[in-house]
Amino acid sequence: MSQSWLDLPQGTLYGIEALPYASAQVGDKAHLVVRIGDHALDLTAAAPALGAGWAPVAEPGNLDDLLAAGPDVWAQLRRDVTSWLSDTVYEGRVREHLVAVDGLELLLPFTVGDYVDFYASENHAANLGRIFRPDAEPLTPNWKHLPIGYHGRSQTVVVSGEDIPRPRGQRRTPDGEVVFGPSVRLDIEVELGFVVGVGSTRGETVEVADVEQHVFGVALVNDWSARDIQAFEYVPLGPFLGKSFATSIGAWVLPLAALADARVEPPARDVPLQDYLADVPGEPWGLDIDFEVRLDGEVISRPPYAQMYWTPAQMLAHITVNGASVRPGDLFASGTISGVDVDQRGALIEMTWNGRDPITLADGRTRTFLEDGDEVAISATAPGPGGVRIGLGEVRGRILPAR
Amino acid sequence: MSQSWLDLPQGTLYGIEALPYASAQVGDKAHLVVRIGDHALDLTAAAPALGAGWAPVAEPGNLDDLLAAGPDVWAQLRRDVTSWLSDTVYEGRVREHLVAVDGLELLLPFTVGDYVDFYASENHAANLGRIFRPDAEPLTPNWKHLPIGYHGRSQTVVVSGEDIPRPRGQRRTPDGEVVFGPSVRLDIEVELGFVVGVGSTRGETVEVADVEQHVFGVALVNDWSARDIQAFEYVPLGPFLGKSFATSIGAWVLPLAALADARVEPPARDVPLQDYLADVPGEPWGLDIDFEVRLDGEVISRPPYAQMYWTPAQMLAHITVNGASVRPGDLFASGTISGVDVDQRGALIEMTWNGRDPITLADGRTRTFLEDGDEVAISATAPGPGGVRIGLGEVRGRILPAR
Repeated sequence: MSQSWLDLPQGTLYGIEALPYASAQVGDKAHLVVRIGDHALDLTAAAPALGAGWAPVAEPGNLDDLLAAGPDVWAQLRRDVTSWLSDTVYEGRVREHLVAVDGLELLLPFTVGDYVDFYASENHAANLGRIFRPDAEPLTPNWKHLPIGYHGRSQTVVVSGEDIPRPRGQRRTPDGEVVFGPSVRLDIEVELGFVVGVGSTRGETVEVADVEQHVFGVALVNDWSARDIQAFEYVPLGPFLGKSFATSIGAWVLPLAALADARVEPPARDVPLQDYLADVPGEPWGLDIDFEVRLDGEVISRPPYAQMYWTPAQMLAHITVNGASVRPGDLFASGTISGVDVDQRGALIEMTWNGRDPITLADGRTRTFLEDGDEVAISATAPGPGGVRIGLGEVRGRILPAR
Repeated sequence: MSQSWLDLPQGTLYGIEALPYASAQVGDKAHLVVRIGDHALDLTAAAPALGAGWAPVAEPGNLDDLLAAGPDVWAQLRRDVTSWLSDTVYEGRVREHLVAVDGLELLLPFTVGDYVDFYASENHAANLGRIFRPDAEPLTPNWKHLPIGYHGRSQTVVVSGEDIPRPRGQRRTPDGEVVFGPSVRLDIEVELGFVVGVGSTRGETVEVADVEQHVFGVALVNDWSARDIQAFEYVPLGPFLGKSFATSIGAWVLPLAALADARVEPPARDVPLQDYLADVPGEPWGLDIDFEVRLDGEVISRPPYAQMYWTPAQMLAHITVNGASVRPGDLFASGTISGVDVDQRGALIEMTWNGRDPITLADGRTRTFLEDGDEVAISATAPGPGGVRIGLGEVRGRILPAR
């Protein structure tokens, strides 16, 4: 395993095993950067000195061209960055392009194509079933046959740190009246997003075995949800305005290659899967990623990704099995990540059981849903090589009063 | 009213009152063209001679830059094109850039941003209610309070003429078994699409009164639907693979300005509307557009757009009322257009009452849903100035066997 010549902070989550990418504002331009420790190497600035062949890929200042370049190029750039940061022969040329992460203005890391949101956590789906249909089976009959998903609004995917004005919309009051106004049940959804690099052709299905040929990496997602707006609108065509006002994603995209040590078997499947969804023996795509959710700095939940029923490989196969294509920049997210335990739930609607059981913060404040001024930050880590932990960054957003 | 110096075919739907735009392949480039009669003026080729100021707008070879340019530019180009085609002083310079429409290879007319599909026909929604929930109210409780919509897959919006391979997916058989294979209930949805030109800012609501500041024009839409895939997947998050394999749109985008004489009062509203959805007195956005649906050349239905409950102005206000933005190239479609009468329905599921009553074609063939090789063509016309009719083009597609 390589060691960086850079003196990294003790216990950093961003050692040479991680190397996530982001887009940062540098002067009046966006630059493509890669993180090491508390610094970022400015690839757009450094490419001419370090490897002129990388200049075109770094030129857009975000991940767009790298995504489309494909897995061989992804691997080669990762190898080159590893060399630049570990071989002292490059140290001088690299050091002058290292910038402190703290001072970076981070941008949306790629141009979002189609955005799909799944519903891949059995615990989450079952909890919502228990809340809304207490007398029925918690899961709908289709749930274990296919990864349920829907399309979201791609242009309102915003980068971590952008404020989230409280959405307005129609809702039904407890006495049945339909009213319009700011949402009174604004929630989070803790999710992992998968960033498509290489596209596919319309009519072609991407095999579960080929996920690494198409998916470049992962980013944290908070799929903000107005539960009251959603509840009134969603029958029969699904969520629309309850979700479309904003979806926050982390600024750092971690290559799938950095998650090799996090791959675990997904939960046992108790309903036989159609062939196109079959897990590939020995190539598991469960992911042992630990999430933390903070409300105004205080941890309120620790959702475990390893319990997710559907894998990203299955999600991608499902998106394309009907002949739909994918393209560079497509984003598909896991849906809310909820563990079995009460303190592992990924949405307030579950944590507070639809508002029945408010959570109490250390300073005595209570919450059922989000209030104006609340700031939610989601972070995650995964096992890396040799016992290190790898960071997936953070996705953060603050609720502003409705405009 | 202007007259063209061009000798137009008797009864043409594409007189100087229409002037729809398209993108056409010319050599190895896309060119922006505008239709007049059975010809198209190649704006990308003609701009240098006719008005060099238009060269940048025509340069991308599709509508992308014109959409973003805004209503003053839209109006000015329409005035200029009208002058070029009606004032004989331009005749020589224009004639050399007229090409026969028949020989054009037409492309997707603009880059599709977010695609939203509505459900704005009361007759359609009520028919589906009667079919699937015969013992309940035909309309869901939210239907008259808001225009129900959902996001579709933007990258599988394809131009008229592209073949539609039959999608594959999971469905439930009548005896409850879940199987995978080609859809056996492939349907059409006859719709009108609205093309967004000028975008809005996240957090800002577009007023009903401002629709003309944002919507550039209309295109015909066939939202192909696999009813069996949709039926199994859609609870609780709405349609996904049942729709995402393909949505066909007409190659010609008719400016909203050409529909001034088609504007009519929408149906009476029997549930009071929230302020943000209120119709503006004297500025109606019902549209008196007559559709025709042909299966292998034979008319099988004539849906009337004038009966649509929700107007495009209301749809746009609804998309943005929660703070979601729109941007150039966004497409929002009306949902299936169905009239009150049996021969005015816009989907086979209604025409055949979910397959119970097959339709019989003139040659004796019967259809419940689409079979391989079937070709569906949707066309529409609207009243123009002085009693002329204006054409909205055609959207056509042929079903191929599943791959």
